Amino acid sequence: MNHNTKDHPQPTIEFWFEFGSNYSYLSAMRIEAAAAQRGVTVRWRPFLLGPIFQSFGWSSSPFVLQQAKGAYVWKDMVRQCAKYGIPWRMPTVFPRPATIPMKVAAAFAAEPWIGRYCRAFMTKNFALDEDINTWEQVGEVLAEIDVDVQTVLDAVSADDRKGLLREATAEAQSRGIFGAPTFFTRGEMFWGNDRLDDALAFAVAPA
Amino acid sequence: MNHNTKDHPQPTIEFWFEFGSNYSYLSAMRIEAAAAQRGVTVRWRPFLLGPIFQSFGWSSSPFVLQQAKGAYVWKDMVRQCAKYGIPWRMPTVFPRPATIPMKVAAAFAAEPWIGRYCRAFMTKNFALDEDINTWEQVGEVLAEIDVDVQTVLDAVSADDRKGLLREATAEAQSRGIFGAPTFFTRGEMFWGNDRLDDALAFAVAPA
Repeated sequence: MNHNTKDHPQPTIEFWFEFGSNYSYLSAMRIEAAAAQRGVTVRWRPFLLGPIFQSFGWSSSPFVLQQAKGAYVWKDMVRQCAKYGIPWRMPTVFPRPATIPMKVAAAFAAEPWIGRYCRAFMTKNFALDEDINTWEQVGEVLAEIDVDVQTVLDAVSADDRKGLLREATAEAQSRGIFGAPTFFTRGEMFWGNDRLDDALAFAVAPA
Repeated sequence: MNHNTKDHPQPTIEFWFEFGSNYSYLSAMRIEAAAAQRGVTVRWRPFLLGPIFQSFGWSSSPFVLQQAKGAYVWKDMVRQCAKYGIPWRMPTVFPRPATIPMKVAAAFAAEPWIGRYCRAFMTKNFALDEDINTWEQVGEVLAEIDVDVQTVLDAVSADDRKGLLREATAEAQSRGIFGAPTFFTRGEMFWGNDRLDDALAFAVAPA
């Protein structure tokens, strides 16, 4: 069936994520391939989790604040990464600050290279255990994926782009997002990497 | 392969749950059939979530305390129940107190009728929207599943059984349980209905 007509527009999934979020990592590494299999287009929606957690009165990730849950999550990540065939190394800093590469992601989220850019930063954080919050790292990743570094660095602070990450975070909050990853498709919200497949199935289900 | 020998003892999964927990409902309704398909024996482990949440400084379920998460969870339950073919009616009281039927479950957790008993109470809470915290309901359910009511009611308060629910709750806390359902198999912990299939696969995986 051809979805790409006026009667059947291309099905779309919004993928709300943040580079510091380990469960976002699981989705970021596999969403483009999984969506393509179903003919679904991914809209990458970077936002900051920190302000969302702060709005709940939390000073950090629940995986830091709740000791028992935190201890469990890292065992779960080992098993989940093995299940999906995704590399994993326990980050020595968690949650890793990522405002700089996230600003670039928000400013260029509609570019065809956004998936490669995001996977590169996720890999640095969760497979290579590297800090990621520098402009040098942004330049390095852009060069790796053959994007002109200077064009991006010049444009990211321009008036029409510089507020996009802050605006996305406000939008996340207003739409009821309380964690990451979160997916929206056809007006429905799905929370967590465990719901990615359900969300993709819903994106293409008969109306 | 016959697991039921001295070299290969019958694989077992511990199922930690509580009647007030909606995600425990999803697992309670399907665990015996799913475990039987893999040749795994279920050990039903009722415990109280309230004291666990109180130990985190929470006065209720996070689905009550966190508004955005709470709003999401009930949409998720509709979809999850549809996916598993399990009936669902939004409970008008949440979380429903269930200490009385949970005491009986803890005292008779090794009985062959424990699965039927638990599914009956879960159905009352999450499919029929009935309150469940009375001895009359316990009697009604036991009669439904052909268990002698008087024998159970006489034995549940005996010295060797009356502390079992409290002891199970303390054990849950000491083993790092922070929510329900939680599964243990071969020394590993798995949290959430979304991990039931992974836990069962691990129960029978080659060592």
